[in-house]
Parts: sequence; structure tokens; C-alpha cells
Amino acid sequence: MKTITLMTDFGEKDTYVAQMKGVILSICRDANIIDITHEIIPQNIEEGAFLLMNTVSFFPKNTIHVAVVDPGVGTDRRGIVIETEDFKLVGPDNGLLIPSAKKYSRFRVFEITNQNYLLPSQTHTFHGRDVFAPVAAHLAQDIDIENVGEEIHDYVDLDIWMGEIKEDRIVGKIMHIDRFGNAITNIEGKTILEHLEYDNRVLISVESREYEMPFVKSYGFVGKGEKLLTIGGNGFLEISMNQGNASQEMELKIGSKVIISL
Amino acid sequence: MKTITLMTDFGEKDTYVAQMKGVILSICRDANIIDITHEIIPQNIEEGAFLLMNTVSFFPKNTIHVAVVDPGVGTDRRGIVIETEDFKLVGPDNGLLIPSAKKYSRFRVFEITNQNYLLPSQTHTFHGRDVFAPVAAHLAQDIDIENVGEEIHDYVDLDIWMGEIKEDRIVGKIMHIDRFGNAITNIEGKTILEHLEYDNRVLISVESREYEMPFVKSYGFVGKGEKLLTIGGNGFLEISMNQGNASQEMELKIGSKVIISL
Amino acid sequence: MKTITLMTDFGEKDTYVAQMKGVILSICRDANIIDITHEIIPQNIEEGAFLLMNTVSFFPKNTIHVAVVDPGVGTDRRGIVIETEDFKLVGPDNGLLIPSAKKYSRFRVFEITNQNYLLPSQTHTFHGRDVFAPVAAHLAQDIDIENVGEEIHDYVDLDIWMGEIKEDRIVGKIMHIDRFGNAITNIEGKTILEHLEYDNRVLISVESREYEMPFVKSYGFVGKGEKLLTIGGNGFLEISMNQGNASQEMELKIGSKVIISL
Repeated sequence: MKTITLMTDFGEKDTYVAQMKGVILSICRDANIIDITHEIIPQNIEEGAFLLMNTVSFFPKNTIHVAVVDPGVGTDRRGIVIETEDFKLVGPDNGLLIPSAKKYSRFRVFEITNQNYLLPSQTHTFHGRDVFAPVAAHLAQDIDIENVGEEIHDYVDLDIWMGEIKEDRIVGKIMHIDRFGNAITNIEGKTILEHLEYDNRVLISVESREYEMPFVKSYGFVGKGEKLLTIGGNGFLEISMNQGNASQEMELKIGSKVIISL
Repeated sequence: MKTITLMTDFGEKDTYVAQMKGVILSICRDANIIDITHEIIPQNIEEGAFLLMNTVSFFPKNTIHVAVVDPGVGTDRRGIVIETEDFKLVGPDNGLLIPSAKKYSRFRVFEITNQNYLLPSQTHTFHGRDVFAPVAAHLAQDIDIENVGEEIHDYVDLDIWMGEIKEDRIVGKIMHIDRFGNAITNIEGKTILEHLEYDNRVLISVESREYEMPFVKSYGFVGKGEKLLTIGGNGFLEISMNQGNASQEMELKIGSKVIISL
Repeated sequence: MKTITLMTDFGEKDTYVAQMKGVILSICRDANIIDITHEIIPQNIEEGAFLLMNTVSFFPKNTIHVAVVDPGVGTDRRGIVIETEDFKLVGPDNGLLIPSAKKYSRFRVFEITNQNYLLPSQTHTFHGRDVFAPVAAHLAQDIDIENVGEEIHDYVDLDIWMGEIKEDRIVGKIMHIDRFGNAITNIEGKTILEHLEYDNRVLISVESREYEMPFVKSYGFVGKGEKLLTIGGNGFLEISMNQGNASQEMELKIGSKVIISL
């Protein structure tokens, strides 16, 4: 069985995702389709790219990942397929797929042009179903990726800023807020561990306010309702509250600047 | 592998849908169960019928679609199975399944009466799990549909109004609002294309207010935050806003009347 | 195909659940992964235990159920695997799994200690992915459960209070509120049926208010918008409103005490 994952900003209340799945199964009957998430903030390419980048490596080798956050659908933005050593990516040429590919020193990008791999008639507003789903299903059938279209080098690039160290502080920003209200930053855990030790108390500035809170191994090391810094499941520093919602309490937002004093 | 789809108004936070899946897998171990959506507005049969009708055709031939929006569960409303040339439908006899069947000139409707295909003991409040899921799983095992019960002709009918042309205007209503705030009407794209050309500006009246907005091929053809009309992924006219939420901004609701001046 | 179910409080908007699925498929390629729900109220072990207990029995024999509601992740709370006659359970040792196991007179509990069955490096904050998912995937590969770790008897116990009969009244509490606003109590339907008959009118006290409402077989036996008591799909008494939202209307909350006068 071939695993195909789907990540979109389509949400769960509509039937867009189901239609993509129907198209995939019509072409590749034994595809195992797994949802990554469909609740990327609408049109937020950076959030989508960040979450995809953190997730692709957990899937089996040769998984095909379809990602659609696509404000330019139906305009002249291209559709692409990317091949890395471990997986393939399918989606719009707007930067969304690139950070996942850049984990590898070598990857190849192909423009989707071969009509044989698309739905016979395509809408202007739903390439997730009409273009990306069928291309992914054909790739799962082991077609040669070079049949999809020409290799290109002028794809839309996207670098995700990984925070920076400035003299006596680490500067980053909030990339994602999870269901628990944990604010996940772009500051890598390994950067933090070079400068801080577990159980240190840390001065942190965010949204023009200053807080002091402990840097701990996990949530349960502080009392219920207490703020904390920890390294989350994807290896990034996060601002949290034990059994509470830090982002609500502290009014944190995606994009908020975060400064850690060393 | 047999594909069985599920569409309900049960939501994602409860375990109702999971129980249906458990029942299906207990009968048909290799069923491939795909969610269409579980967020139909509670008890809104028309919205459910509209979304199902737009989605069934994307699935492989011989898919079994289970749909449950069922305010009359446990009363004397019947359960039915419908057979079309391409797929089978399973659910309550309240109109929900009919618009999907009517895409075909011929279809047959059977009342579910054979207790052998139901859970041994049935609750009065959850036929999705106790009746429709096991019937679907047995159908996936290729039992003869005539074994389920007698063919009936007095099923509850439902026509979805497809809007109408009145002299100098097209009149329709909003059937569904998607995650992006696109308000999807019952006015078919092909009707619109007979009267309007892309890039025309259009006078539209909805919720007692008048707007002028362009009719375009896709969202990205207008500036960020601008209103637009386009033909959505399911072939219906929709009222949208590029990278914004038209329904929130314009206070659009399901059921709102829409008038397009020609 | 082996069925593995997942129940967590991780929500749908993050990629935590997808990462668990990727880990499972990397170990056991043909696992059939089914979501029970990911919207348990954050850190609410009792709600999770109640919903899991009501759902496990609907799945095929030998299903492996992974459940993660885990405020103590990364502290010294243990991870466990439970074996019953019908299924296996994997998750934190905080009581979450116990009510599901207690449906059987005999079950065995093992502490997860064998590093061979975990991800090579484990975070402190995400054992769902690093510990419980890979253990479940290895169990699906039919490893001997005794290889996971030592059998233990001092696991954290959890009894779900099933309400009680006090002279002339039945006392219980609200365990869960579903998408329709049905307030599901811990009072078992069979207890109710010993004392009440369908179509009786019942005096009920909840949140310091008294109501009189009929006890009926299903929602559709009262008028639209009318309150009712019925036995829900999982066999518990629930407070409902036909085509309305009882919990919103009556301001019911999880944990609210419910008193039925006999």
C-alpha cells in the first residue's frame, strides 16, 4: 500500500478534502490516505510550510505528500512536484513545499504540465482536486516523475527564518499556536540548550511585555496554571502553561516577536 | 478493498463516527472508510443532500455512501438503501439521499427490514451505528441488495431548487458557507456562463443590500480583500472575497436569497 | 490488516496526530488507523476514560487502542500496555485506560520499558509519538506483549462513578456534552428503566434549577425545541432538546450534578 498524505487549509466542514480522496482512490485504489491537517490558517503559506516541514520525516520512505495552501489558484502560478531521496511533494509553486525539500542537499522540482495525469476537465478554483490529487495518485502508481513535466529551477523559494542570536539575547517569532495554547516559536531547541540549562529561570519579552518563567523539560514540572518554557515535540522552544492556555492568557499571536535574555 | 464513505452531522468531538467505523470493520475487515464530512449543520437535511450530491461522483465505481442527518431517528421513519449504476447509498428515508440518486435516470430504493444485517440489539437514538453502518458493511461484502428488504416507491422525495431565471435576473439562494467564507449558491455555473462573461461587473442583491463586484475565473484575479463572484469547485456560483471572508463581511447566511441582475 | 485506533486531546489543527500515524506506518505498513476522537477536553482524563470505555467494544477483536490524555508527560508517570481478552490498550499510566479494561474480569498491565520498541530518541513532551505510537505498531506486528516490559499491579486506578439511587431519587452527573448539545450523564439506561417507563413525565434538577420533561424513546417523540430525557446511543441517560441544543439552553456543564425524582 502506498501512503499519500494531505495537508490543506480547506477545513473539515466542507467536502473538498473528500473529493480529493475520491479522485485519488479512483486512480489508485489501494492508496492509504492520511490527513496531516486541514486547518492551516486560510492562505497562510508560512504556517503551512512550517508544519509540513516538521511532519514529513515521520512518514515511511516513498510517501507522497500533497499540500495545498493556494491563494493563487487559477492564476498563472504553476503546479509542481518535488522529488527528494525520501519522499515526493505535490502542490502549488508558492513556496509551501520548499522548506520540506530543503532538509535535503539535493532535490528536483518539476512543473506539472502533462494533462494525462490531471482530471479531464479542470476548474479554475480547485486544483487540489483537479490537479494535485490525480498527479499524486499517478505518482503512487509508480509513473516516472519526469513524465509529469519539465524540471524547473526558478520555482518560488521560501526560507523559514530560524531566529537569531544577538549579543545577549535570542530573537525569534511565534510560528504556530496549538490546541493547548502552546505558542511554538522558530527558535530551535538545540540553540536554546547551548545557552540555557533546564530549571533556569528565563527573562522573556513578547508582545511588549516581560515575563520570568522557568525553562523545564516538560509541562508537569511546574504547578498547574504556571507559565513555562520548554522544547516541544518538534524541537522548537514553546511558551506554555501547565494545564492552561498560555496563548490566550498572554494574548500571543502568530507572528509575535519573542526575545529571550541570556 | 471496498470504499465506504460516511457523511453525518455528528461532528468530530464525539465518538459516534468511530463507533460506526468499528461496526463496519467488525463485519468487513478490509473496508476502506473515508469521511466525507461530519459537520453538516445539525439536522439540516437540505445542506447534507446538497453536499452529498456534489461529492459522490468523485469516488470509485461501486463505492457505498452512508449518510446520516436524521432528526426522525427512532420514530417510524424508515431506513433505506438506494442502488444507482455507479454507487449505493445508505441512510434515513427523509430525502437526504435522493438528490444524489436523481443524477441518474434510473435508481432503485429498498427499505431496510432484514434484521440479519443490523446490530443484534438496536438503540432508538443511534441508527447510524446500529442500522446504517452494518448494512453498508454487508453490502460491501457483496450481498444481494434485494436481501436488505422490499423495493419501495413511496420514499420521501427531495428536490433541491436550482435557482431560476426571471426576465432580467437570476434568483437563487445560499446553500452552504465554506471554511473560507465563500457563500455557495444553488445557481449553476453553466446558467451564469450563458448570461455573463468573465471580467463583467455584476450587480448582486443579497440580504437586502446591493453590491457591484466582478465575475472572475478565480479568487486571485482581484486585489486582496476585494469581493468577487466566481464558479466554485462544484460548479455553482459563489460569493467570495480574495484572501478574506465574504460571508462574515457581508453577513451572509445559509438560506439567504441571492439576485443577480443581468 | 490490523486496526489501530487513536484517541487524544491533541485536536485536529496541529500535526501531532499525523506524526503518530507516520510513526505507526513506518513500523507497520499495513496498519489501518482509525481516529476515535482527538477533541477530548484538554487534560480531562475522566472524559477521555468515559468515551474510550464506551467505544472500544465496537471494534474488531484484537484491535489496538492508543489513548493519550497526558498532563504528566515527561515526568515520572509511567507508560503502560493493557491486555484484555478482546483488545490491547496503550497509553499513560494515569487511569485513562482502566475503565475500558475493567469491563473484563481479568486483564494484565505491563509497564513500557523496552527501548527497542520506542523511537530511537524521545522528547519529554510528546510520548504519543515517541512511545505509545511505536509500541502500538510493534504490538500490531504480533510481538509478545511480555517483551514490552514487566507486568505491574500498582497502576493508577480510576473508577468512573455510575451514579447512585438514594431513596426517592437517582443522583448522577454530566460526563460529556456532544455536538448536538445532548448532556450525557453517568446514569445507566438500565437503572432508569427499572424505575421509569417511556412517556412518563420526570422531575429533574440540574444546576440548581428544576425541570419537568418527558422520558421518551427518541428525540422525535416531542415537538421541535422541546426538552426530553432519553437513553442515548451508549446506554446512558441524556438530557436533550428535539432539534435544539439542551446544554446551551439550560447552561449545562460537564460535571453538573443531576437529580431525577422518582
